[in-house]
Formats: sequence, C-alpha cells, structure tokens
Amino acid sequence: MTRTLTRKGTATRQRIVEGAAAEIRERGVIATTLDDVRARTGTSKSQLFHYFPGGKEELLLAVARHEADRVLSDQQPYLGELTSWPAWLAWRDSVVARYLGQGRRCPLNVLVSQLGRNTPGAQAVVSELMNQWQAEITAGVRHMQHAGAIDPQLDADRAAAALLAGIQGGVLLMLSTGSVSHLEAALDVGIDNLRARFP
Amino acid sequence: MTRTLTRKGTATRQRIVEGAAAEIRERGVIATTLDDVRARTGTSKSQLFHYFPGGKEELLLAVARHEADRVLSDQQPYLGELTSWPAWLAWRDSVVARYLGQGRRCPLNVLVSQLGRNTPGAQAVVSELMNQWQAEITAGVRHMQHAGAIDPQLDADRAAAALLAGIQGGVLLMLSTGSVSHLEAALDVGIDNLRARFP
Repeated sequence: MTRTLTRKGTATRQRIVEGAAAEIRERGVIATTLDDVRARTGTSKSQLFHYFPGGKEELLLAVARHEADRVLSDQQPYLGELTSWPAWLAWRDSVVARYLGQGRRCPLNVLVSQLGRNTPGAQAVVSELMNQWQAEITAGVRHMQHAGAIDPQLDADRAAAALLAGIQGGVLLMLSTGSVSHLEAALDVGIDNLRARFP
Repeated sequence: MTRTLTRKGTATRQRIVEGAAAEIRERGVIATTLDDVRARTGTSKSQLFHYFPGGKEELLLAVARHEADRVLSDQQPYLGELTSWPAWLAWRDSVVARYLGQGRRCPLNVLVSQLGRNTPGAQAVVSELMNQWQAEITAGVRHMQHAGAIDPQLDADRAAAALLAGIQGGVLLMLSTGSVSHLEAALDVGIDNLRARFP
C-alpha cells in the first residue's frame, strides 16, 4: 500500500505503531485489543481507522515491521561497521545481549505466528529483515577481505548466509530451551572460522 | 507418564499415533479431530481414551514425539556414521533432501506451536531432539578427530552446537522464504570449516 501522509500524519501513525508495540510486548498479541491501543495512544476510532483501514491485521503488520526494524537498530552501530575483528566481537556481544535481554518472548516471532507465517505480509517483513541483515554481514566480510584480513577467494555472501542461519537457529533454540549457548556457539564458531581464513 | 502396556497395547497405541500423524500431515493440526483419528485408525472412543486419557493434547504430544523421532531417523544411517568426509557429505545431502521433500510445512513446528512452545511437554520433545541430534554430530566430529582428520584441539561439542544452530536457522528461513539456500549454506560452510581444521 502506498499512501502519502503529511508530516504530522506520519508522526501520529508512528506513535500508534509504537504504542501498539509496547502494549503487545506487555500483554501479548492475543490479549491486546484496538481499544487498548486507542487508550494507550489517545487516539479516536476514526483516527485509528484513518491510519489502519484494514483494522487489527494491518496494525499488527505495521507493528511487525517496526519490530523487524528494531532487530537491526538494536545491533547498531556495530552491525554497520564490521571493519575490524574487535568490531566483529562487539557486534557479537550486542547480538547476545539483545536476545538475553529479550528473554524467551520474541515479539517478532509472536507477531509473525499470529499473522500467519505463510501470509504474503508476514513473509515480506521476514524476507526484508533477513535480506538487510545478511547484506550488512556480507558488507562486513567484504570489508575484511579488502583490508586483507580474510581470503578474497571466500564467498562472502555464502559465509554471511551461513552466519545468519546460525543466529536464527540460536535464537530459535533459545526460545525453546531458555539458554543462549547455541546462539553464542553459532556466533563464536562462525567468527572464528572467518578469522581463520587468512589470505 | 510411565505406564506399562502389553505388546499388543504398545502396537495399538503406535498405530493410533501414526494414523494421527498422517492425518495431521494431510489436513493440518487444527482441522484434525479425534473423530478423524478414530475413523482413520479404526479405534473406538473408549480405546482412544484408554491410550490417551488426556485427550487431544496428550495425543498431539505423542505425535510431536513421533515426528521428532522421524527427524532423526530420516537422517539415518548417515547421521550415525559420520566417519569419513564422504559420509559427512552424504549426511548433508540427506538433510537437504528431507527438508526439500517436506516443503514449507514442518509438522513438528506446527505441533510445537499448537501445544505452546513454552509448555513443559513441547519443550521436553524439542530439547530431547536437539540433545540427541547434537550428540550424534559431536560423535562424528570426535570420530574425525580420532582418525586424525580434524584438529583434536577443536571443541567438538561447541562445533556441533554451531552446526545444529545453522541447520535450525536454515530450516526456519526455508519455512519463511521457501528457499533451501540458507540450509545449504549453513551445512556447506560448517562442514568446509571442519575440513579446514587439520591437526
């Protein structure tokens, strides 16, 4: 959907999305009603309908996109500056800290499940997040290759795909087991192996 | 629950679980009723109650355990015999083929979501599967270490944890994107890195 909002309109819409995200983080996606969101954000029914004519589903999709953006912004500035081995390790720590802090409830996972993992809207949010995430890791690998710290023969995008898969699996296992050990193993082994790839 | 069943009882219970698993694979977990399972397996209400006094939830948990067993048995004999690099590559192919064949519906994931990822029963099924899976990969790494094909200094269990996380993330990304490329990258990069660990 492409719609042009005024600057004030954009701000109001963003305020509703952020309020809904906070409400869902506190109460869960099923318990949160549009009335809860209206009460929290001080918006009228007609305002909510104006910004989200598709109702709760459209709002949930916007919240999912917001949570996906947060996944990436929580890893900054490290993820965007993977230009030295200390920077890679700082990024590794920021990822572990993010998921430790979040605990066993992953808001994005809950939203995607609720929207239906196979619906086009949910798929687009997940695909876009994974593409951006992988692109940033790939850029980091390429930087290290240009700096002479990783073998230039290494397929940077494939290495980034493998590392991203390890992170996703580590987070998934954490949601089931409560332990961050698989996430740490995936990051540590993945980064160790990149470091071992001397030119 | 520990209960002693006769040999015939064990067979009947197993037949009900397998019938329910097939029904759920075909129709989905929500659409499948106990009546469907009874019709498919030719069992009476009292028989079903005898084997699953906890009703549908207890049956779903038994089906989840059955699907978890299948995840491992589908990887055999390769997973249990990771004793040479060709064996590792044959295992890699069996994992990719299994998930390609399964497509975007992962019965175990659906069952665990339906039971509630955080319920003790679902958690036990997932933990046990992951523990067994990781133990088999670890045994393979150790075998290669003893055979002099991998550096004995390598932490076999940590390497196996990272590889397992990569597989889980690859499968999760396949459920969202429909592509097996992350699963392949995780396996290929993970195995390549083990092969690069010469003593």
